[in-house]
Formats: sequence, C-alpha cells, structure tokens
Amino acid sequence: MIFTDRLTRDLHDEICRIPLIDPHSHINPHAAAAKSLDDILGYHYYTELAHSAGMSQAPLGKEVPPRERVRAILDNLDRIDNTAQYSWFLEIARTFLGFKGDRVGAADCDALCDAAERLMAQPDWEQQVLTRTGVEKIFLTNDFDDPLTGFDTNRYVPCLRTDDLVFHLGNPAVRERLAKATGIDAIDDRQLRDAIARLFHHFTSQGAKACAISLPPDFEPKPVSSYDLTRAMTALIDGSEDLGTKRACAAGVFWMLAEHCREFKLPFDLMIGVNRRVYRTGVFQGQDLFDQRTSLLQYAELFNAFPDVTFPISVLTSSQNQELASYSWIFPNVVTNGHWWYSNIPAYLIPDTRARLQAVPKTKQIGYYSDAYKLEFILPKYNMYRRILAQILADDFVRPGVYSESQAIGLAQLLLRENTQRIFGV
Amino acid sequence: MIFTDRLTRDLHDEICRIPLIDPHSHINPHAAAAKSLDDILGYHYYTELAHSAGMSQAPLGKEVPPRERVRAILDNLDRIDNTAQYSWFLEIARTFLGFKGDRVGAADCDALCDAAERLMAQPDWEQQVLTRTGVEKIFLTNDFDDPLTGFDTNRYVPCLRTDDLVFHLGNPAVRERLAKATGIDAIDDRQLRDAIARLFHHFTSQGAKACAISLPPDFEPKPVSSYDLTRAMTALIDGSEDLGTKRACAAGVFWMLAEHCREFKLPFDLMIGVNRRVYRTGVFQGQDLFDQRTSLLQYAELFNAFPDVTFPISVLTSSQNQELASYSWIFPNVVTNGHWWYSNIPAYLIPDTRARLQAVPKTKQIGYYSDAYKLEFILPKYNMYRRILAQILADDFVRPGVYSESQAIGLAQLLLRENTQRIFGV
Amino acid sequence: MIFTDRLTRDLHDEICRIPLIDPHSHINPHAAAAKSLDDILGYHYYTELAHSAGMSQAPLGKEVPPRERVRAILDNLDRIDNTAQYSWFLEIARTFLGFKGDRVGAADCDALCDAAERLMAQPDWEQQVLTRTGVEKIFLTNDFDDPLTGFDTNRYVPCLRTDDLVFHLGNPAVRERLAKATGIDAIDDRQLRDAIARLFHHFTSQGAKACAISLPPDFEPKPVSSYDLTRAMTALIDGSEDLGTKRACAAGVFWMLAEHCREFKLPFDLMIGVNRRVYRTGVFQGQDLFDQRTSLLQYAELFNAFPDVTFPISVLTSSQNQELASYSWIFPNVVTNGHWWYSNIPAYLIPDTRARLQAVPKTKQIGYYSDAYKLEFILPKYNMYRRILAQILADDFVRPGVYSESQAIGLAQLLLRENTQRIFGV
Repeated sequence: MIFTDRLTRDLHDEICRIPLIDPHSHINPHAAAAKSLDDILGYHYYTELAHSAGMSQAPLGKEVPPRERVRAILDNLDRIDNTAQYSWFLEIARTFLGFKGDRVGAADCDALCDAAERLMAQPDWEQQVLTRTGVEKIFLTNDFDDPLTGFDTNRYVPCLRTDDLVFHLGNPAVRERLAKATGIDAIDDRQLRDAIARLFHHFTSQGAKACAISLPPDFEPKPVSSYDLTRAMTALIDGSEDLGTKRACAAGVFWMLAEHCREFKLPFDLMIGVNRRVYRTGVFQGQDLFDQRTSLLQYAELFNAFPDVTFPISVLTSSQNQELASYSWIFPNVVTNGHWWYSNIPAYLIPDTRARLQAVPKTKQIGYYSDAYKLEFILPKYNMYRRILAQILADDFVRPGVYSESQAIGLAQLLLRENTQRIFGV
Repeated sequence: MIFTDRLTRDLHDEICRIPLIDPHSHINPHAAAAKSLDDILGYHYYTELAHSAGMSQAPLGKEVPPRERVRAILDNLDRIDNTAQYSWFLEIARTFLGFKGDRVGAADCDALCDAAERLMAQPDWEQQVLTRTGVEKIFLTNDFDDPLTGFDTNRYVPCLRTDDLVFHLGNPAVRERLAKATGIDAIDDRQLRDAIARLFHHFTSQGAKACAISLPPDFEPKPVSSYDLTRAMTALIDGSEDLGTKRACAAGVFWMLAEHCREFKLPFDLMIGVNRRVYRTGVFQGQDLFDQRTSLLQYAELFNAFPDVTFPISVLTSSQNQELASYSWIFPNVVTNGHWWYSNIPAYLIPDTRARLQAVPKTKQIGYYSDAYKLEFILPKYNMYRRILAQILADDFVRPGVYSESQAIGLAQLLLRENTQRIFGV
Repeated sequence: MIFTDRLTRDLHDEICRIPLIDPHSHINPHAAAAKSLDDILGYHYYTELAHSAGMSQAPLGKEVPPRERVRAILDNLDRIDNTAQYSWFLEIARTFLGFKGDRVGAADCDALCDAAERLMAQPDWEQQVLTRTGVEKIFLTNDFDDPLTGFDTNRYVPCLRTDDLVFHLGNPAVRERLAKATGIDAIDDRQLRDAIARLFHHFTSQGAKACAISLPPDFEPKPVSSYDLTRAMTALIDGSEDLGTKRACAAGVFWMLAEHCREFKLPFDLMIGVNRRVYRTGVFQGQDLFDQRTSLLQYAELFNAFPDVTFPISVLTSSQNQELASYSWIFPNVVTNGHWWYSNIPAYLIPDTRARLQAVPKTKQIGYYSDAYKLEFILPKYNMYRRILAQILADDFVRPGVYSESQAIGLAQLLLRENTQRIFGV
C-alpha cells in the first residue's frame, strides 16, 4: 500500500519498529520456519481457495511429490489473485524468497522451489525470519498432552488448547492421551478435575501463559453438577450418549477449565463461532464455517461467574464484533483479541478495528495475532494490520486532534505488545 | 458522481465499455421496454416509497388514468429525493427522456409523459435502450408454465422460476397450471418428479440457462423421502395440511428441483431471506421484508449433497454477505450473485463488494444484476454499480499495486460478463 | 475534527445554525444542568468505562465525597482516552469549564471541580448551556406517575415512559404508584385500561408528545385477550406467575399502550434490543447489553395492526440498522429514530446514517437525540453527529450533484428539527 500522505507514512514507520508479541499461532516450535515452498502453500488458505476455485483435491494427496503439489496450487493462483490471501503469499515470495515479479504462477514453480530450499536450509533461517518480521515472542497452540520440551518457551510461549477435552472426551483416543499425560484414567467428575489440575500444573510450570479453545456458535457455557457431569461422562464412555449428554459433558468440562484458569491465573482465550466440518469433503482444515446466529449473551453467565478470569475473545463476524466491542466496554474481564479467520481481511479489519478503538478501553485490546502455521506468515499478516492501523490512527486520532503522533504510537504499542504483556504476564 | 482522480475516471470509462450480461431480471420479453412513464414509475420501488412517505394507495387503483397516477407519484418524489431509487429515476429521465432539470416533480408530469409516449413509441425504442445501456443478454424470470415462445431466447435468456412449485403447490390454480403445462396431474412424488422433468426438458430445450427461487429466512433444505413427500402432497391437496406438512412438501419439492438441476446441468439461483406479505396492506410488490436471523448454515446439507450443481446465491443483508463471502470461499459450488433489493444501495454495495473482492476467488463472483422489470432500469442500476466498482478497483487494487490497470479491467470483465458466460453457459 | 475541504466546512457551519429539537433525553427538568463535575462524570458512560478498565466500584459509593469520586474517575481516564465518550467529556471541559489542556486527568481534579462549582452556580447557567448548544426543546423521559409540574413543558417536552407498566406490573411498588397516580387499584384488564387512559389523559393534558419504552431483544408484541390478560395479572399479583404469564402480561399491557397511542394520537417510541442486568454486579446503569439475535419481524403484527400510530424506532446494532432502514422504507408508520447507545460511536454512526439517507424517505428520519442526563452532554454528542452529517452530505449528496448545498442544508433541517416537529407535533 502506498500512503499518499506523510502523516500515515510516518506513523507506519514508527509502528513497524514496535517489537511484536504474537498472542496466537499454530507454530510448531520444533519446526517453526518453513523448509520448502510446500510448507507455505500447504497452508489451508491456499489449498481451500484453490479447491474452491476449481482445483481437484488430487494434488493434495500424500503420495504426490511436494513440488508437483506446489505446481498445481501455483497453477490455480491466477483465479484467486484478487484475494488478501494471495497478497500474503506474494509478499512472502518477495520478502523471503527474492521473487521480483508482480504475479506468481506455475511458471515460477521451479525457481521458487529451488530458492526456498536453498534459503530455508540455512541454519539461521528461523532467526532471519524472526528478525525480519520484528517479532519477539509467539504464542503456541499446544495439545493438552504436549510435553512442552525441547524448545525455548520464552520465545515460543506455550498455550493449553482444550478443544479435545471439551468436545471429544467421548473419543477413546482422547481419553487415552489424557490418561497417559496425567496418570489418571478419568471416568468421573472428581478424577477429571484431578487430571485437569495436573495438566494446568504441567503447562504453567513449563511457562504456559494462556488456556484456549474454539467454540461452535450454539455453545452456551453453564455450570454442571458433579452428578450430572459424571453421568454424562459415563454415557460418553460407554457409548450411550445422546445430544443432551454430549452438551452436558462439554459444558461441564468447559466450566471446570474456567475454574482452573481462575486457580492458575491463566487468561482463557475464547474463539467463538466456528462449526467444524460444514463442507464435509473439503480439504484438510478447509471445511469449517460459521453461523451468524450467535451472541455473546450466551457467555454472560460465564463472565459473571469468573470476574477474576480474563477472557480474550475472538469472533468470526463483523456483526458480532459490535457485540464484542460492547461486552468489552461493560465487562472488566472481557478483552478484544485479534481478528479471526473470515474477519481477517481489510474489508472487515478496518471497521472492526475502528469500532474497538472508539468504544473499548485502550488497555483492553489485543490488536492482532497471526494464527500462523509457519513463521513466514507472521510478516505479511501483521503488515496488513499495521498498514490499516496506521491509516486509522492518522484519520481518526491524529488529524482530528484526538492524539498527538507520539500518543498514537503509544496506542499502537499497547495493541501490538504491551497489552499482551500485561494481560498474559509475559 | 464526479471522480476527482484520473485513475478512477479512466477505469470507469473502460468498465463502461464492457458489454453487459444481466443475469437476473423480471423483464417481459414481449414488452421489454417501457411504453409510458407509468411503466417506469409503476415500478414498486416508487409506489412503495411514495406510499411509505405518506401517499395514499388511491392513485394506484386500476381505474385511475395512468397519467394521474404518474402525477401523484411525481408529486410525492420530493419526500424521497434523497434515496438511491429516486436517483435512478432522475437518470432515466435525463438519459432516455431528454429531461434537463435537477429535480423532478408533479410540474414535470405532462412534459415527461408526452416525451415518454413519443419516444417510447418509436419502433426501435427497445433497441435504442439496449444499445445505450450496453447490455447484450438479459436473463428472465419465467413462470414454470411459460411457453417461452415469440422472443429471441438468445437475447432474453429464459430462467425457470420455481417459487410456485415449492411454496404454493397446495394452491389448486398452481396444480392446474402444472397439469396443463406437463400433461401430468401430479398427486404423488413419482408423478411430480415426472412433471418437473418435463418442465426442465421444456425449459432447457428452449434455451433456459438457470433455475431460480426466492426463499424465506427460515427455510432449511433437506431430503424428504418419497413416502413423506407423497403424504405431504396428499394432505396439501385434500386441504388437511398443517405447518409440518407444508414444510415437508416445500423441502421435498425443493430437493427434487436440485436433483433436476444436477441432471439438466442448470445452475440453481437461490435468493435467500425474504418473507412475503410482512406489510399486509402494502402496495403491490411492496409488502416483503426480511428477518436478519438466518444463516447459510441452513444450506450446508444442500451444498454438500449437490457438488455438481452451481448455486449462485443472493442475500438480503450486509451481515449475511459475510457469510456468503465465506461460504463461497470454502464451497466450490457456491458463487456470489449480485446485490439484492435492500442491499442494493451504495451504503451496502460498497462494503459488500469490497469483502467479496478480498475473499472470494474472482472466477466465482457474479458482480451484479438489474432485477429490472423494464429495460430502462438496467442503465441507472448498473451505472451505480460501475461507479462503485471503478472506485474500489482504483483504491484497493491499482493504487496499492495489487493490479495494473489492465488487470483491474480484466477483473471487471469477469464480474460483468465472463463469469456469467462461463457459469451459466451463455 | 478538522475539515480539510471547504464544502464540508461550509455545510457544517450552516448545520450548526439549525436550532435543535432533541427528541430523547433523560434530563430532569428540575435540575437540567449539572451543578458539579460529579454530575458530569457520574454519567454511567464514565463510571462503567472506568470500571471496565479496572477501577474498583469503591469510589462510586454514596458515602464517598463527590470530589474524591471525580478524582478517582479522572485518574482512570487515561485508559479510555481513545474512546468517543472521553472525547465528549474533553469537549465539555473545554467548552463549558474553560479547560485549556489536551488531556485531562487526576491532576486537573481540583481546578476543574472548582471551575465547575463556580460556573454552574451562576443563576443563568442552564440558559447559558442551552444557548451555547443551540437547542430549543428537549424531550424528557417521565415516569408514569410524574406530576409534570413545576417546569416549562414547552421547552422540556414530557414523554410517558412505560417500561415499568409493561415489565414490572408484578412489583407491588409499581402497582401502588399506579393506584396513587390514577386512583384505580387495577387488578383486571378493564381497570388497567381505565388506569392507563387516565395516565394518557394526564400526560397529554400536560403537553406530553410521545409514549416510549425500551424492549428486550426477544420481545414480540401481540394482542392478548381480556380474559388472558386478567388471568395473567391475577397470577402476577398473587405471585403465582411463570414465564408464560409474565410474557402474556407484558404483551397485553404493551398492546394496550399502543391502543392508547392511537386514541391519544401519540407516537410510540420503541427502543429495541436491550437486556437488563447482563453484567449483574456492574455499576449503576452499566449492566445492560444486547443480543444481536433479534429482528424487527417480531414487530410486524404491531406495525400492521396500528397503521395510525407512528413508531419512531431505535435499534442497538448496526446490523439491525439495515432492518430498520428497510422496514421504514416499506411501512408508512415506521420512522428511524437516532443512534442509540452501543451504536452511538462514529464507527457505526457513519454507515448507519449513510444507509438511512440512501434508503428511507427523508421525511421519516429523526436524525439524532442526545439521550443525555445533564444538559451539558447535548453539545458534544450533537457535535459528533453534526460533523458526521456534514461529511456525508458533502461526500454523498453535494459533490456527486445529487443536492445543491442549500438542498443539503434543507435535509439537515429535516433531520435535526422539522421531522421531529411534524412527527411529534411540537
């Protein structure tokens, strides 16, 4: 983006100097940076968009040589070269792979793959990417049975992801993983509580700074009695569950997690609104969609019951962003968190950011996260946000005299770094 | 709109050269152009807005001389001269009727009516309007028993409209029309299937390129067994239906239509969200409104079940536009289609268009349709869209370096013409 | 806001000359202006935002000296200095209290409090504020048992607020107040009808110009038979009510109010969408939030049943603003009314105003109201709206040639004054 005015350009330059703390990603700390172009274009944003635009799923098969998969996806990029997602890839190619062109397609496959293999094989590639991006810490998404060993938890901050516990406890593999991780074969409320406490002990002792979960649009947290939770667990375990039991179990486990967040002083990241497997034969991770008929009112009981737990909230729609801005304006323990998935394009980022900045205390806003699977994506995604933020600060704050330039930069520091530090204690 | 910058002006000039294919209208091909000003101002947008602003419905009676009806509506236009709809009329008056003024009211009635009668009586008026508008093909909305004869189906593309079959099969007149059109007095699932097959045969053999329907906000497609559909039809026919039977029948017929779209390779246009007769004593066609509490999730089963059918989708709200952009991003068979009715004003057109352009593969977007009842409306409606498109292409694509000018024009060609050609096979 | 272009500045100057009629406030006419800074910063917008940002509720206790409460709130303002609400306060301090700084905090407490006490003690302070603001009439929010005496009802226009009657008739204190105000101890439908008629008589004879109510998102008006209403009232009175009875009673009383609005020719202001006490331990008036899952379709029966009653409607979300624009476009008796609460920030004011101006007859739009508790708030809130209006009139109307400058000012006069005069008869 070319800033036509000097104020926005100056603000943008200053914003880009703020060392980032990325409060949500799916980075694997043992393989944080990409090793090939396949690692980049295998990101579901590209596979799902290429498939949506007409590419068969054949090139995505495990038996297909990676370079042929890359070639197939590149060959479909011209149908999605209008999208924000395409622009991220182009920026990665230019910034990290020395690509000089304006468009990228199948003809660039071999040159790009060769460049990627050569560059990404450098022993300091990970550090190069981090430095170039200006990111200092990155939060992870760790399975509850992750040993959390073998990486620098100061840079890659562990985060206890709990979807499996809340929604898949009926799955024997999940229970087995839980038993293995905690030494407890949890078949009732009490045992489950002990097992979860062990997970929180393990995670917090290894530097975890958040608990997190993604939730379907119709989820409504509420306390479940020990008796009912145990009954629900029993039904789940012996396979006699129905929808009511499954809901009771999910609600009960969720509430128990909130109790542990309180005890262990962890913020509980809620990512609200996703239905899984809506497009049942879609590509891997390209099957989920939302239902706009959802409300944060479903969480009012939770917010009331846990005044000491901070809930950084992500929502999927721009409409619900107005709810989020309003609930954060009223509830001390509700905090706005980034711009998630289907809302992470400028058309929604701009109005959503603007609304939050006008209505929510500035200390309660976590500006952005990358949601990245590989380090290389942090740069183009944050750049999109930083450009938008610079423009809003110029238009809504500095030009109307609300803030001086340095005050505007101070606000950007809260959004990109300091609020995350304070809220998560990093 | 005056474009203050040259880039937008240049893009707009080029966009206006693209021959349009209008993929949805209510044009009567036997009387495509207006014959009088009454044909223009009788459009429900004007009668409903004039009535909403205080005009009684008396001037709309059949016995009122057309010129007096026109005078009455013109006399009320000053209360709606702020609206997008008024601006369309003013543009029609200026472009097609030689009107020179800045505002139009009752004092202009006779001069405008005279001009309209004189000009519209020219034998080549229809061709003049088409040429001036730059439109090449226009899709129709045909009743299922339309003979589809006596007009050029290459220019006026037939489209099988199916609301009556899905929602009014209990109406004896509808069943009679179906029997007459197909030779089948359908009283069970099997016969109905045969009758529908005949309709598809007839329509496709006459050049139909789409099946279409408008749907209420609470409609949820699902398969219905032969047994249940026959039972529901029986109840409908003998008048013993309840809400459950009516829903089963609607769902069953709808599903059957989707099956025939698959077999006959027709896209199925879904126009989602309208409740009929909400304002029960409103003017003709000015009684319908929506309920924002609806979701495309209701259509997930349909999209999964018919991967080979393309569903061009129209929605009524800007909130649901985010769902539409997201569902088109994920489902290969979901395509965005125009900007419908209450969303067809710049305040919603601009953000909705922008979101689609940033998130949906460019080959899956049908930019706009006129929804016109008379040819004269295609020009001002498309002009509104073309101005907006030029501005977005300038601001979001060319200026930030995403596209060159010629690439931006290429995108406009997809939106205004080529996607429609490819998706509908015209 | 600095207008960079002359057109917007000129429009803004002219708009600021229009004498305002403020059609909704919570002003106490016996103490209309503030008497201290505590009266200003005690406004729930500040107490709730300061609390949301981390301030304990201790300083809000009745026993706390007002100046210490002010100091505590001022001390928390730096965490909310990004918000629209903060900007209103800063404008009040600058305009009315001679404050010269760019930021305001605890260090300014004594100087500001001293200035406020000195200035607000002037006998003509109320008149000074009114003159400086340019407001001519202000609608009130009066309890149904307000005697409406001792103030100038020409300047402070009474408005019958009916939430207590509809939603709290089961409360003995409410029934007692009703009995005292009307001389009728209403225990059945007939008596309630008589009592309500007396309230309407009293209010209209004292110059009331509107009936008003705020409604929860799930409220759905419908007629209730005398028998059912009496039964519901009986249950409410003897404490045997359940959810169904409460709903029947609320619906029945509401419908009865609409009947009296028809008889007494009062517009019925509906403020749709608020749930009370969502954050149960929040500060006074800082506990309410909304549920976006609501629709104006719930009011279709009401709008159909009372064609002679005008319903000025306020909604809480920008999504529902599209419904409001559409329902006002279709129903003659539905009028858009201001920008309420969580939608009263520029991020939503701008798109919502723009949509209404493009879709709703200009005579059916009540542009703005202050919702103020003290006169001093009318100025900064209306200034926010006037700046936005000037910009929209410049961008959407004058520059594209839709309106001349004087026509644009004429539209502003409708929005700020004349529509209110005509619709409410003031």
